[in-house]
Amino acid sequence: MIKIKRYKNNPIIVPKIIKPSRDDFEVIGAFNPAVAQYGDQTILLMRVAERPKQVSKELKIPFFSLSSKSIEVIDLDKTKFNLSDPRVAAPKNSKYDFNYLTSISHIRCARSFDGINFTIDDEPFIFPHNEYETFGLEDPRCTKIGDVYYINFSAVSPKGVCVELVSTMDFKSYKDEGVIFLPDNKDVTIFSGMSSGSYWALSRPSVPSTGNLDVWISSSSDLHEWGRHKKLFGGSNSDWDNGRVGAGIPPFLTPYGWLEIYHAANNKNEYSLGAILLDRDDPTKIIARYPKPIMVPEYEYETNGFFGKVVFTCGGILNNNDLIIYYGAADTNISVAKVNLDDILSGLEKNSNVEG
Amino acid sequence: MIKIKRYKNNPIIVPKIIKPSRDDFEVIGAFNPAVAQYGDQTILLMRVAERPKQVSKELKIPFFSLSSKSIEVIDLDKTKFNLSDPRVAAPKNSKYDFNYLTSISHIRCARSFDGINFTIDDEPFIFPHNEYETFGLEDPRCTKIGDVYYINFSAVSPKGVCVELVSTMDFKSYKDEGVIFLPDNKDVTIFSGMSSGSYWALSRPSVPSTGNLDVWISSSSDLHEWGRHKKLFGGSNSDWDNGRVGAGIPPFLTPYGWLEIYHAANNKNEYSLGAILLDRDDPTKIIARYPKPIMVPEYEYETNGFFGKVVFTCGGILNNNDLIIYYGAADTNISVAKVNLDDILSGLEKNSNVEG
Repeated sequence: MIKIKRYKNNPIIVPKIIKPSRDDFEVIGAFNPAVAQYGDQTILLMRVAERPKQVSKELKIPFFSLSSKSIEVIDLDKTKFNLSDPRVAAPKNSKYDFNYLTSISHIRCARSFDGINFTIDDEPFIFPHNEYETFGLEDPRCTKIGDVYYINFSAVSPKGVCVELVSTMDFKSYKDEGVIFLPDNKDVTIFSGMSSGSYWALSRPSVPSTGNLDVWISSSSDLHEWGRHKKLFGGSNSDWDNGRVGAGIPPFLTPYGWLEIYHAANNKNEYSLGAILLDRDDPTKIIARYPKPIMVPEYEYETNGFFGKVVFTCGGILNNNDLIIYYGAADTNISVAKVNLDDILSGLEKNSNVEG
Repeated sequence: MIKIKRYKNNPIIVPKIIKPSRDDFEVIGAFNPAVAQYGDQTILLMRVAERPKQVSKELKIPFFSLSSKSIEVIDLDKTKFNLSDPRVAAPKNSKYDFNYLTSISHIRCARSFDGINFTIDDEPFIFPHNEYETFGLEDPRCTKIGDVYYINFSAVSPKGVCVELVSTMDFKSYKDEGVIFLPDNKDVTIFSGMSSGSYWALSRPSVPSTGNLDVWISSSSDLHEWGRHKKLFGGSNSDWDNGRVGAGIPPFLTPYGWLEIYHAANNKNEYSLGAILLDRDDPTKIIARYPKPIMVPEYEYETNGFFGKVVFTCGGILNNNDLIIYYGAADTNISVAKVNLDDILSGLEKNSNVEG
């Protein structure tokens, strides 16, 4: 078994220390952060989920209004919606996942010089501002290419869940780079370097015709246009990954190939982490895949929260031979764990299963 | 009303004149053809749907086997599948569209010197041959760029419905150009020319989160990688297009902008044709949209077939000022209609509705 060492004082960031974007809102989650090493600083690009304080019998739903260019609140009659999944409000008897989300997420920076103690920005970094983001921005990933940090995230709106890209050089301002993957798609991670002259990305398109939620791989010459799509891997029949899979940390190069730490959910919506190794020169080829999870939700802060039993990573930092994994726990807080790279790579070598 | 003139001897191609790819199969549909003008010839790249002759009480399902590299047949117990949609077999109580298709489609050429009388090739042109095509190839479109004809189509398999591209210069052999749009996506049409230095395409991604089936627009520098995706238009609340929309004929340039003839289905699965005009220099801008259908299924050959009440176009030919629309009727046969371009353009100008 690959040894993951959690930080003893987890979680390192909890919702109550985050200033809401307005006084009548409450922050219910700070989780699933992208990670950037920016000079001496470790920056977490947190997903901050907030909602109107629930002060009446109606369910108060937040959304970004294109006409007022600000967040507005509508009151829903709770009896007319299915609220069994706390994340969404779907009209009863609808076959679709949602009409509304119960919270709205933006991206906020937390900054640290030791990777453990973070100072949280008072203001959002990337806030909903266009037609694809009216229900918020979720689950960012960050990939540094040259001097530019590229940040991609799921943009949620009545148009669906698509994937947008922005770029920054200073984590103060950013430039919109447009929609890079059509809806519905999530969990896009851009490789932290080129291979065979191309950029590469993993993504997890939704496939309603057959219900598959698998990871595909695509290549690009400019980060804006993506193609040469191939299905890379799906879940298995095991009890930790028989629901779906999605990419996690942007793949990074090791002496044995591109290492990807991904998430998998079982059919009880419990999220674990897995490891897969891709060929250095042709990342569409799987070299090795660890058949078991490398991390499962175990601790109270991972099993008890807004959406329980979730460990979900969007980024990590390589520190000598240690991979520092930042992860969202229970869709609520941010925690950190450490794993020795050799331990993962030798575990992959000894226990591989390359079936996709 | 825009005047569409159907050919008096429609349909021009029916399934019974098509040779099946093997003796124990029957052709049940020749429809939804892409169209190419190749020298003096008009070539229809027909979708030919065939199935095993049904000789036993089991439902015989065809699929392309990756191990034998040929079409194989499996027997399904009819009592265990929902067969209410004749096109698919879904396990009872499944929430997914299908586990199997009841027929398998390939692409076959029909060739003509007058655009009406066609000679049908005995052999398929593009036949299932890879992991994305095990349930067949559907609804091709053809766009000539330079001397090369690019053909894209929906590739259907248990991995979902994705969009592949091939190229040909002679309609005898072709080159695989890979998967250009992730699943689930359909009805991709590549513009018949560049605009502002880019190639452009319309597509219709599936969006299970909210159920939208709308047309998006994407651009490309090389036809393989696509990005800068924007939602372009959806259906309306009218009784002809309140179900979904999808692109049809590859958009072509007129003096007023890019003209697109698309299909729309209502919530009774009746398919009509509509017209929309896009800005010459920025095709993400809608100039005009005709609020009514330009063609609805009316004639017996359009209302009675494998899947009734369908007119569905994948291609046309400009002949002086006439647009010759080839279309699939009732998912069964191929018919042809003519419309004067000025009639469409003046109709668009007078009756526009640019709401998307």
